[in-house]
Amino acid sequence: MAKKATIVLFSGNLDKAYAAFIIAGGAAAAGMDVTIFVTFWGLNLLKKGGFDKAPLSQMNMGGLGRWMIKRMMKKANVLPLDKMYKDLRELGVKVWPCDMTLGVMSIKKEDLIDDIDGIAGVGSYINEAKDSEITLFI
Amino acid sequence: MAKKATIVLFSGNLDKAYAAFIIAGGAAAAGMDVTIFVTFWGLNLLKKGGFDKAPLSQMNMGGLGRWMIKRMMKKANVLPLDKMYKDLRELGVKVWPCDMTLGVMSIKKEDLIDDIDGIAGVGSYINEAKDSEITLFI
Amino acid sequence: MAKKATIVLFSGNLDKAYAAFIIAGGAAAAGMDVTIFVTFWGLNLLKKGGFDKAPLSQMNMGGLGRWMIKRMMKKANVLPLDKMYKDLRELGVKVWPCDMTLGVMSIKKEDLIDDIDGIAGVGSYINEAKDSEITLFI
Repeated sequence: MAKKATIVLFSGNLDKAYAAFIIAGGAAAAGMDVTIFVTFWGLNLLKKGGFDKAPLSQMNMGGLGRWMIKRMMKKANVLPLDKMYKDLRELGVKVWPCDMTLGVMSIKKEDLIDDIDGIAGVGSYINEAKDSEITLFI
Repeated sequence: MAKKATIVLFSGNLDKAYAAFIIAGGAAAAGMDVTIFVTFWGLNLLKKGGFDKAPLSQMNMGGLGRWMIKRMMKKANVLPLDKMYKDLRELGVKVWPCDMTLGVMSIKKEDLIDDIDGIAGVGSYINEAKDSEITLFI
Repeated sequence: MAKKATIVLFSGNLDKAYAAFIIAGGAAAAGMDVTIFVTFWGLNLLKKGGFDKAPLSQMNMGGLGRWMIKRMMKKANVLPLDKMYKDLRELGVKVWPCDMTLGVMSIKKEDLIDDIDGIAGVGSYINEAKDSEITLFI
């Protein structure tokens, strides 16, 4: 049976989403069974057009803005977030938007992109995480 | 023997505390043995009245302020943080304030709420975490 | 075989670096095999002089500035970050700067301190994390 990695994606920030997706992709490429449980601000990423609007977690650090990071990502041959997400899905990474926080953030299911799995509760997350080798909160 | 979940609660923010408590509650409800090791800014939550003063991690994101989040939590039938904490304790979740960072933050034991377990060092945290299926840093 | 702890150090903040180093030190002292995979803003810490420049994650919280935290750390007999790092290395903690994000952040290998292990990709991180008892994202 494949080893499991379960990531809570709490952050809606561009840099943290990149970190989450790179780790998820690496785990899936290594044959792991990967689930991303998306909650709170992370849900903004899953809204239609959300990948393009993601802010940076560290606005002023070293003068690096969102535009700059995107340019540097491109220069370093890192895929844009939406393309990376598509690859993750093709690798079989499961993406579960969190039921309770959709309600809290007043986000409706029809606001979300289509390429997600079913909406899930914390119980489903725990059920997956308790058998996972890698558990992260990002 | 019950599976274990061990959470480091580093953040003192309202939204991250909610995430930590919801995950801890879900894990405890699933029969796991849950410990929250509270350190740095997280210790502010455990001060008397601290749950009411917790700031948001993402002040300006989408115009959602602390007051708004609280209203939305209520609308989505999510318990206030202090009631959620009480439920966690009734479910047997252990809460360990971190010894070293209490000193760093100049917080005295008598500043803390009564409903906590003993103050613990990083060694106790590691001892718990090394046998845990779920380990998170929030 | 020793149990393993694998920490992703994404943050470049003083307080989060302290948390990462204290946990890494505690795990190493307990006989665990510890690896810190340093990525994104965390790479700024590994630049020459980087430990001294690290900002706080929560600037205004309770009026605690960077200078204040450093003074409080000293008062609480907590080692400065650079000395703590030296101790970690003597305890055998592995430090792997992330290949891809070095490129993204335009940091060259010669900008980094000497006392690190080889530069590593996400595949190496996953390989270590999938056999780890403790996995954290800080």
